[in-house]
Amino acid sequence: MTIFERIIAREIPATILYEDAELIAFRDNQAQAPVHVLVVPKKAIPSSNELASEDAVLIGKMVLVAKNIAKTEGIAESGYRIVINCNKDGGQSVDHLHLHLLGGRKMGWPPG
Amino acid sequence: MTIFERIIAREIPATILYEDAELIAFRDNQAQAPVHVLVVPKKAIPSSNELASEDAVLIGKMVLVAKNIAKTEGIAESGYRIVINCNKDGGQSVDHLHLHLLGGRKMGWPPG
Repeated sequence: MTIFERIIAREIPATILYEDAELIAFRDNQAQAPVHVLVVPKKAIPSSNELASEDAVLIGKMVLVAKNIAKTEGIAESGYRIVINCNKDGGQSVDHLHLHLLGGRKMGWPPG
Repeated sequence: MTIFERIIAREIPATILYEDAELIAFRDNQAQAPVHVLVVPKKAIPSSNELASEDAVLIGKMVLVAKNIAKTEGIAESGYRIVINCNKDGGQSVDHLHLHLLGGRKMGWPPG
């Protein structure tokens, strides 16, 4: 069981910003920017490598939730970065698909 | 007209790796990693801020295309990073929604 499943099950506390039947979003507790939120599908997909065609709507919704949180967090106009890491070279740290939303500061290039 | 529309219209050359009715993918000519590919919807959406609920499938397909290209480029197992930049703080450089796929090296943290 990953830390995300334990957050979904309310076994570990988190600052939850959004939740519906399919997705949950909460603040990253190792924030890399003034706004740093994770958007996580409740379905335990290990990484983007395991996404199937029928997951298109789910992953699209993850991006839409990130966009909506950017607006409520007040960073939609200033800007933000959405990041999905896969496996070791990507820097994936939890083996449960998740999306990072980062903003509130100027993000540099390259992206890591 | 952005540079991406000119690539879609074949007015500017690009190394195109994938194309269908909705999406096109080509190598970034300012590559920040051994593999650096852009996935672009043909529909000219300025940024992720302008995504509507009905775009969920489209943006999901962008991620699926990135995942598939990661596999054909040989970086699926080693890992990769998917990035969407929005507006100035996000580092968005072309006002036409696009996704970056980067891999072939260890990506650092934070992501910019």
